[in-house]
Amino acid sequence: MTVDITPDAALDSGVDRSAGVTAPAGFRAAGVIAGIKPAGTPDLTVVVNDGPADVAAGVFTTNKVKAAPVLWSQQVLTAGVLKAVVLNSGGANACTGPEGFQDTHQTAEKLAEVLGVGAAQIGVCSTGLIGERLPMDKLLPGISAAVEALGDGPEHGLAAATAVMTTDNVPKQAALTHPDGWSIGGFAKGAGMCAPNMATMLSVITTDAVLDQPHLDHALRNAVGKTFNRLDVDGGTSTNDTVLLLSSGASGVTVTPEAFEAALTILAADLVKQLQADAEGVTKHVSITVQGAATEAEALAAAKIVAEDNLCKTAFFASDPNWGRIAMAVGNAPTAFDPSLLDITLNGAQICKAGGKGVDRSEADLSGLEIDVLIDLHAGPASATVLTTDLSHAYVEENSAYSS
Amino acid sequence: MTVDITPDAALDSGVDRSAGVTAPAGFRAAGVIAGIKPAGTPDLTVVVNDGPADVAAGVFTTNKVKAAPVLWSQQVLTAGVLKAVVLNSGGANACTGPEGFQDTHQTAEKLAEVLGVGAAQIGVCSTGLIGERLPMDKLLPGISAAVEALGDGPEHGLAAATAVMTTDNVPKQAALTHPDGWSIGGFAKGAGMCAPNMATMLSVITTDAVLDQPHLDHALRNAVGKTFNRLDVDGGTSTNDTVLLLSSGASGVTVTPEAFEAALTILAADLVKQLQADAEGVTKHVSITVQGAATEAEALAAAKIVAEDNLCKTAFFASDPNWGRIAMAVGNAPTAFDPSLLDITLNGAQICKAGGKGVDRSEADLSGLEIDVLIDLHAGPASATVLTTDLSHAYVEENSAYSS
Repeated sequence: MTVDITPDAALDSGVDRSAGVTAPAGFRAAGVIAGIKPAGTPDLTVVVNDGPADVAAGVFTTNKVKAAPVLWSQQVLTAGVLKAVVLNSGGANACTGPEGFQDTHQTAEKLAEVLGVGAAQIGVCSTGLIGERLPMDKLLPGISAAVEALGDGPEHGLAAATAVMTTDNVPKQAALTHPDGWSIGGFAKGAGMCAPNMATMLSVITTDAVLDQPHLDHALRNAVGKTFNRLDVDGGTSTNDTVLLLSSGASGVTVTPEAFEAALTILAADLVKQLQADAEGVTKHVSITVQGAATEAEALAAAKIVAEDNLCKTAFFASDPNWGRIAMAVGNAPTAFDPSLLDITLNGAQICKAGGKGVDRSEADLSGLEIDVLIDLHAGPASATVLTTDLSHAYVEENSAYSS
Repeated sequence: MTVDITPDAALDSGVDRSAGVTAPAGFRAAGVIAGIKPAGTPDLTVVVNDGPADVAAGVFTTNKVKAAPVLWSQQVLTAGVLKAVVLNSGGANACTGPEGFQDTHQTAEKLAEVLGVGAAQIGVCSTGLIGERLPMDKLLPGISAAVEALGDGPEHGLAAATAVMTTDNVPKQAALTHPDGWSIGGFAKGAGMCAPNMATMLSVITTDAVLDQPHLDHALRNAVGKTFNRLDVDGGTSTNDTVLLLSSGASGVTVTPEAFEAALTILAADLVKQLQADAEGVTKHVSITVQGAATEAEALAAAKIVAEDNLCKTAFFASDPNWGRIAMAVGNAPTAFDPSLLDITLNGAQICKAGGKGVDRSEADLSGLEIDVLIDLHAGPASATVLTTDLSHAYVEENSAYSS
C-alpha cells in the first residue's frame, strides 16, 4: 500500500509483528475466556494504561446504527482520557436498545471498580452478532479474571489480540520502536470496513510517547484516513468499528506530531495489511490505485467503486485480466475523466491504453497472490490507493453457511 | 414489485409473454445467426417500424464510459425518429475508440441502405465483451440476412428476443393489448443494472399507439425510472445499457399520455421481473421495500444499499433471516432516520422492532424462492422498492469461470 507519509529513515528497521499493545512502556494487557462465546475460546480483552499520562483518542464507525459500546466510547472520549479499554468478542451489543447501553455502562463500571478509576475513563468495544444481548453473568466475572491476568510481556499483548478474534484466523498485532526511545504497538481484528460475518473492525493502539491530546487525536484521524479507511473488503461499514489510541507517556520522550503520525501510519498500514490477508474467503490481495484524478477524494471514490464491484472481484478470483469490467466500474464513479484517455495497468501490463485495447492480455499475469491495479485518469495530479480482496466461493460459503 | 401507476382495470387481463415486439401493428422483426458469436447461435436482431409514424425515444446508461452504439443512438435520437433498430450480441463495441464508432456508423449505414432510409433513422445496440472490435465481415452480411427474414408474426418477435441473448438462459418478451384497440410489446436481455458477465441490459419496446414524441419520451423516462432502474443485481451500470421505444401509430388510436404510461410501466415491470428471474446465479427473487422515508430518493438509496450489500445477499442465499446485516446496511445509506425506530419485516415477520429484536427468527421463513424485505424508517411518507437477487456460488462460478 502506498501511504503518503514523511519518510523516516529511523523507522527503516520496520515493524515487529511479534509484539503488540504491551510493547510501549506503561501498558498491561490480558485476554481470557469469559464464556461469552459458546465455543469456549478467548473472548475478553483488557488493556490498561498505567501512565503517567492517560490521553487517548478514538475514531468510530460512520454508520447511523451504532452499537452501544460505540455510543459509550464516543461519549467518554469527549474528555480525551482513557485509563483502560475492555473488549469482548461473541456479541456486538448492537440493536439492543437502552438495555444494551446499560450493559455497556455496567461493563465499564465493573472494570473501573476493579481498577479503582472512574467509569468515564473506560473505553468499551464489542464484536459479534448484531441484535443479541450480552451474557453479563459471564462477562462481568470475566473482567475480574482478566485484571488478575494482566501483564506487560509480549505474551500478554498476544493474548489481548487473540481474545478479540471472531472469524479471524490469526491474531493481528504489530509494534514499532523509534531510535529516539519511544514506541508504538497495537492489535486489530476484523476484515475490512465491515468484517463479513461478524461485522466489526476493532483496533487498540498504544504508545509511550509524550504527546498532547489534540495532536494524538489529529494523528489518529490522519492515519486512519490513510490506512484503515482504505481497506474495503465488501463495502460495508459496521455498527461497531472502532480504533482507539492510548498514550502512557511512560517513555518520557516528547515527540513531534509529524514523527508520531509517520510512525502511527506505518503501524496502522501494517495492521491493515494483516487484516487484508485474513479477510474472509480471500484468495487474492488486490491493490487498486487511481492516479491522474482531479482531487484525492475523486481518486478515492474511483478506487473504492472498483474495490466494491462484484464483477471485478470475481475476475480477480479467476486471475482474469478483464479490464472491460474495470473500465465499466470506473465509469460509474463520481469522478471526472475523459474515457478516451483512460489507461489501466494490471500487474505492470498496460492492458487498456487511451480508452481502448493496450498490450495483449497474455502479458497481464494475475495468477499469483498479489494483484496490482493501476488506473490513470489523466484528469489531474491526485491519487489514492485502496486495498481489497477477491470475491471467491469461500467468501460466499463463509457468509452463507454461517447462520445468524 | 410495487409500481406507482394509475390503476387501469382495462389492463387487468394482464401481460402476454408469448408475444413481443411484433404484437403492435406496423412492426416487423427478425433474429438471425450472423456468425459474430463463435458458438454459432443467433446474434443479430433487426426491428423495423413500417409506420405510418416513426417517433421514438431512448434511455441510456449513465456510465461515463459509453459504448459506441450508445453514443450513436443517443445522437440520432435527438431528432426523436427511428425507422429501425439493429442489435448484436457477441460484442459490446465498448472501449474500441474511433474505429469502434466507425463500425457502429457502418452498421447503421448498411441497414439504412437495405431499407432505403437514412442512417440517422437507425438505432444501434450491442452487447458482449468490452474492448474487442466487432467482426464487421460477419455483421454486415448478417444485416442483409436479417432484413430478408423480417416478419410480423409472433415467431419473428421471439427470434428478435432470442438473438440478443448473451448469458441469458431464456428470451424475455411481453405484450399488452388495450381494449381501446392499441398495443405495446417488447423484449429485453440482461440481468440488472449490469448483466454480470456481459455487462449490458438492452430492451426494445414497440407500440402502435398514436402519441407525440415528447409524450413518448416522457412516458419512457418515467416508466424506466420505476422499473428497469429499480432492478439491481450487482450495483454496476454497464457501458451499453439501452431502452428504446418506437411508435408506429399503426393502430390509429390516439392515447392519453397517462394511459400510455400506465401500460408501458406494466409492460416494463413484467420484463424486469423476467430479467430478475434470469439473473446470473440467482436462487432467490428478493424485493426490498423501504417505507417511511423522508423522500422517495432517500427510500430508493436505502433500498439500493441493501440490494447491493454482499453480506445481506449471502444471507438471502442461505435463507437466513439475519436482520442485523440489513440494519447495518441501512445505517450506511445517505438516508435520515432514527435507529431506535427502525422496523424490519422479512416475509411478513417483524423480526426487528423499534431498533431491536422483534418476533423470533423462526417466524421468518425465507426457504422459498421469494424473499420480501420491508424496512420502515418512520421518518416520513415516502417509499421505494428495488428488486435484487442473492449472492450464490453460481454467481461466483459464472463470473469467474468465464474468461474475458
